[in-house]
Amino acid sequence: MPYYIGDVIKDSKSLIARTPEKFEETGIKIKLNTRVESIDAGRGEVLLASGRRLSYDMLVMGTGAEATLPGIPGTTRDGVFTLKNLRDGINIKEYIKGNMCRRAVIVGAGFIAMEMSEALRNLGLETSVVYRGELPVKKWDPVFSGMVLEELANNGVSFIAHNSPVAVEKGSDARLWLVTDKGKIETDIIIFALGVRPETKLAREAGLATGESGAIRVDSSQRTSREEIFAVGDCCESYHRVSKKWVNIPLGDIANKQGRVAGRNIAGYPMIFPGIVGAQSFKVFDLEVAMTGLDEKAAENSGYSPVSSIIWGNPVARSMSGGQRLGLKLIADRVSGRLLGAQAAGQGGAVSRINILSACLWSGMGLDEIGYMDFAYSPPFGGAWDVIHTAAQILEKKL
Amino acid sequence: MPYYIGDVIKDSKSLIARTPEKFEETGIKIKLNTRVESIDAGRGEVLLASGRRLSYDMLVMGTGAEATLPGIPGTTRDGVFTLKNLRDGINIKEYIKGNMCRRAVIVGAGFIAMEMSEALRNLGLETSVVYRGELPVKKWDPVFSGMVLEELANNGVSFIAHNSPVAVEKGSDARLWLVTDKGKIETDIIIFALGVRPETKLAREAGLATGESGAIRVDSSQRTSREEIFAVGDCCESYHRVSKKWVNIPLGDIANKQGRVAGRNIAGYPMIFPGIVGAQSFKVFDLEVAMTGLDEKAAENSGYSPVSSIIWGNPVARSMSGGQRLGLKLIADRVSGRLLGAQAAGQGGAVSRINILSACLWSGMGLDEIGYMDFAYSPPFGGAWDVIHTAAQILEKKL
Repeated sequence: MPYYIGDVIKDSKSLIARTPEKFEETGIKIKLNTRVESIDAGRGEVLLASGRRLSYDMLVMGTGAEATLPGIPGTTRDGVFTLKNLRDGINIKEYIKGNMCRRAVIVGAGFIAMEMSEALRNLGLETSVVYRGELPVKKWDPVFSGMVLEELANNGVSFIAHNSPVAVEKGSDARLWLVTDKGKIETDIIIFALGVRPETKLAREAGLATGESGAIRVDSSQRTSREEIFAVGDCCESYHRVSKKWVNIPLGDIANKQGRVAGRNIAGYPMIFPGIVGAQSFKVFDLEVAMTGLDEKAAENSGYSPVSSIIWGNPVARSMSGGQRLGLKLIADRVSGRLLGAQAAGQGGAVSRINILSACLWSGMGLDEIGYMDFAYSPPFGGAWDVIHTAAQILEKKL
Repeated sequence: MPYYIGDVIKDSKSLIARTPEKFEETGIKIKLNTRVESIDAGRGEVLLASGRRLSYDMLVMGTGAEATLPGIPGTTRDGVFTLKNLRDGINIKEYIKGNMCRRAVIVGAGFIAMEMSEALRNLGLETSVVYRGELPVKKWDPVFSGMVLEELANNGVSFIAHNSPVAVEKGSDARLWLVTDKGKIETDIIIFALGVRPETKLAREAGLATGESGAIRVDSSQRTSREEIFAVGDCCESYHRVSKKWVNIPLGDIANKQGRVAGRNIAGYPMIFPGIVGAQSFKVFDLEVAMTGLDEKAAENSGYSPVSSIIWGNPVARSMSGGQRLGLKLIADRVSGRLLGAQAAGQGGAVSRINILSACLWSGMGLDEIGYMDFAYSPPFGGAWDVIHTAAQILEKKL
């Protein structure tokens, strides 16, 4: 009988209400709040914290990732949080309500930090984002990071650049001080949004190989270095179709796909996970921000000769755009003319363009084709020349 | 010196304000309101209505398409219109205002008819759509046509099915009667929106070949059957990458692309128009409707063995969708598993999905890949499994 062990299902109110019975019906036994201490891969056993041993024929590692905390004093204080799963979100909300928080500090400036800043502003908190660098969401081109910065400012979020946290201390007026290398910020709640790292302890101790990314190494069937053990989601690597490298991009949609691939292979319906192109997006207030593929640096590291350009267009026909602007950056390979990556930001239309370009990356299209591709043109949804066409044609001239 | 002859530029207020000078600067002479009576291809001359002859080395036919009128009495009466270009739109608006129209009848139920019904309702007119068939926009699956019908009803547009016009007569209370095979409808203005046919008279008289579609035959360089004469836009054919046939799909984005391809070839920078996949869309009130590729019938006519399914999903993550539904139909080839076409309708997200699927059609992707493609997932923009993934996976099971 297959077992589900862990605490993830418990996080979701809707799932906890319906899942145990549903799983039982299908013959799957669920053990919630059950910690696995170690895996004895030689014997095919899982050792639980209770001392009990469960034997397995096939094992799936879905250990996920854990939120990173900086190695500074005070991070265990009340009011200090990370945000990884639904339970964290609920805890943060309850803490804010229970302690009548008025001020919040977010440390880090990736897209989880951006989404949190919007959520906290919507709860009415004075919100600051503290970051060691110059601009938020540094994975994006500075032009788009600058748009995000402006969006934060327009919505009353302070962005405190060039500050690295060195300690969390007990506050005087408010609950806490975030001490940085540049000063002290008083606040009721601190959220560290410094990214996640794959949770691989159990896997490594069981002797499973990890890749260069630090995540569990798998093949396209989601098999680890042991053929009876599979890994899926944030804890493992994925094949990047553009860089041709195995990478760790912790995103829920990738995890979902890998889970299904592993399940099919275990159940005897062989299937290959075809890989990823690095598509991702976030919303911050009224701004859509998205990317796919590689940026120039990643392209160079993969042996390409990247060339790029940024253009500004309209998400819909100019006459209907109401002044809305959409920025699109394309990165292509000078040698082959193939698209390598894209980034976009605007009040609307960024994600839809990046998804189209993800499909182009998926099949390795060149700029010459992308510049003349056929879209479902209608003025409320785009111009006769879409911003994608224009961007591809302009970049093609640079090849 | 290249000439531009015609009246199209005159249609657009913004273009007329700036274009003549701009063209003159580049050495192009424009002759507006100048009718070409015939082309003497043997001598390389164009005969104008004034009797003057213009000689050419290269000639581009951009004669467009003309709106279809039914062969019934009374269509020349005041208050009867077709809608093809900007001038028609201005005339309709002026007529409505000048005659204080209260009631409008649109004959036909394609997407121009749908867009007109919205425009007329927004001007406050009682609006009826009269159609010989059962449902509007018959190129779409009846499920989506039904959604359009509902959208019309929700916005106060009467849809009068199974009525074929037989005459336009002088009205009694209002200006006009539209007489149909089932009765009479009184109205102030009648708009015939029965589609367009390619304007090929000059081309045929000059001995240029036309294709099966009735439009001017061209090659991928936009050359007609004479190498010094090019044709672009609604008057000529385009290569359909899925059906592998030459078709006539009169849309502004295709015309723009073909115009640029012809211009480059004439100027000595050879270029191929890579063809189309049949992507198109329209908006009617709060509904987005789009399609790409082939429907089952067109697929069969092209030698495929089509299989299809329709699924309902959410345009964004279910928790954020506010009850919005998105319908997506996929058509695939049973033999190869390749995608052949797609249709979608919903309050949002239909066009963006159809554009992604157009990119998939462009490169001939199979359902197995589409079902696991990488998109820029984020709950405000889609589910972890997008409706595209689900639709492709469900249809794959039917292969």
